Amino acid sequence: MTTFNSRLLLIQKKSNSLLCVGLDTDVKKIPPHLRSKKNGILEFNKQIIEATKELVCAYKINFAFYEVMGKEGWAIIEKTRAMIPSSLITIADAKRGDIGNSSTYYANAILNEMEFDSITVAPYMGKDSVAPFLQWENKGVFLLALTSNEGAFDFQYKKTGTRRLFEEVIKTSQRWTANNNLGFVVGATKAQDMKAVRKLAPTSPLLIPGIGAQGGSVEETVRFGCDKNGYNAIINASRNIIYASNRKDFADAARSEALKLTNEINFFRNKYF
Amino acid sequence: MTTFNSRLLLIQKKSNSLLCVGLDTDVKKIPPHLRSKKNGILEFNKQIIEATKELVCAYKINFAFYEVMGKEGWAIIEKTRAMIPSSLITIADAKRGDIGNSSTYYANAILNEMEFDSITVAPYMGKDSVAPFLQWENKGVFLLALTSNEGAFDFQYKKTGTRRLFEEVIKTSQRWTANNNLGFVVGATKAQDMKAVRKLAPTSPLLIPGIGAQGGSVEETVRFGCDKNGYNAIINASRNIIYASNRKDFADAARSEALKLTNEINFFRNKYF
Repeated sequence: MTTFNSRLLLIQKKSNSLLCVGLDTDVKKIPPHLRSKKNGILEFNKQIIEATKELVCAYKINFAFYEVMGKEGWAIIEKTRAMIPSSLITIADAKRGDIGNSSTYYANAILNEMEFDSITVAPYMGKDSVAPFLQWENKGVFLLALTSNEGAFDFQYKKTGTRRLFEEVIKTSQRWTANNNLGFVVGATKAQDMKAVRKLAPTSPLLIPGIGAQGGSVEETVRFGCDKNGYNAIINASRNIIYASNRKDFADAARSEALKLTNEINFFRNKYF
Repeated sequence: MTTFNSRLLLIQKKSNSLLCVGLDTDVKKIPPHLRSKKNGILEFNKQIIEATKELVCAYKINFAFYEVMGKEGWAIIEKTRAMIPSSLITIADAKRGDIGNSSTYYANAILNEMEFDSITVAPYMGKDSVAPFLQWENKGVFLLALTSNEGAFDFQYKKTGTRRLFEEVIKTSQRWTANNNLGFVVGATKAQDMKAVRKLAPTSPLLIPGIGAQGGSVEETVRFGCDKNGYNAIINASRNIIYASNRKDFADAARSEALKLTNEINFFRNKYF
């Protein structure tokens, strides 16, 4: 069976794209003509996926935006996941993590029952809280390392011995799997620190949110976030793409934004790699 | 409006109980006569709540066990929450935490839409990932500090400057709210370190899992986990109580176990406070 990390690399090569579109869909932000429709959010996601699927390597579904709708939201996650072509990577941005026994249930829920290819996981509770998500070599984990938000400065940069906490997380967690299925979340807003990340994890996939609305630079993200061959950065954009237009042309507008961004990413890949 | 922490204390005084029952309900573990029933899990939860509600101060619902059932599981969480008497505390053991924008959605989902009184939150992403859960003074947060599992040793004990990471989390996070609604998760398996926790957070509520199946001592948990008046420890037990019997008498058996445990807790409260 192909490992998660190998499959991701193949998909990035085939699609010639490092772009991930984040489906952070909020009923209050979708175009008015869809807001009142019964399946408005699902229709929105469907059209976004249809319009962008040739331009991306992955889709990321942020569970927060769906859980607020209760069991309906859960059903929309499942249906949206099923709409994503199986030739692309699906990422459950759910930031789970609990004692081993509970994490086993979360892993079954999201990677098996919901059939996501990968999931974001929080590192604070250590090995047994992460290991259940790493048990299948074709399923991947993106462990939070250096996040894109301001709160990253509260603990992630704290010096623990010779390393900072995010470096300790990256160093330690690589001993938790032999399945070639571990990657890390590193915010585009922390591009200067990606050199430190790549020193510890030269070939790991990095899921990189934070360009666009959060202010990260595309050039620095590509330059410091990619592996030495210009791959293994998964650059996520959400709001800038999915809400590019608030009219009936939203899917075309999303496609234009995605094309612009993937071209910009590839321009810098050509420049630096 | 009464703050979350004040309300919890009143409830512990009125019920004379520090016990929390964890509804970690797994369809494979409930009595056979309920397993095949359409609403078996809900019926199980209902009977457990009915049988134990006079003996506890809180119920904790671990989301992992329900998410594995997809949208049905989500509906069962909502219905179970609604069965818990409003005179008791409800804890969503969901371990959420994301960038501020996303955490706001999680907070709305679980504290507003689902109407839980409180939630467990992961600290790794710092202030803006936790603050949205702290915005209402009648809703509480239990921030992961020193967890009950083996993986706690991976990062939580790392020395960061003069403090260990779990101490840094407790110290720093207390600046994030003025609403008297922050508590911490501290595992019963780490009872010896509760002294250090209580030094930093003398009056905060501590949610304490890990007695029973995980091996924590009730005596040490009471002695070191309570505040100076013998309150503000919420001692959780799940498997030992809810699976006390696998027959039709499961609710009576759960009541007996809950009674035994709350008596044991109160015996040690009388001994030490």
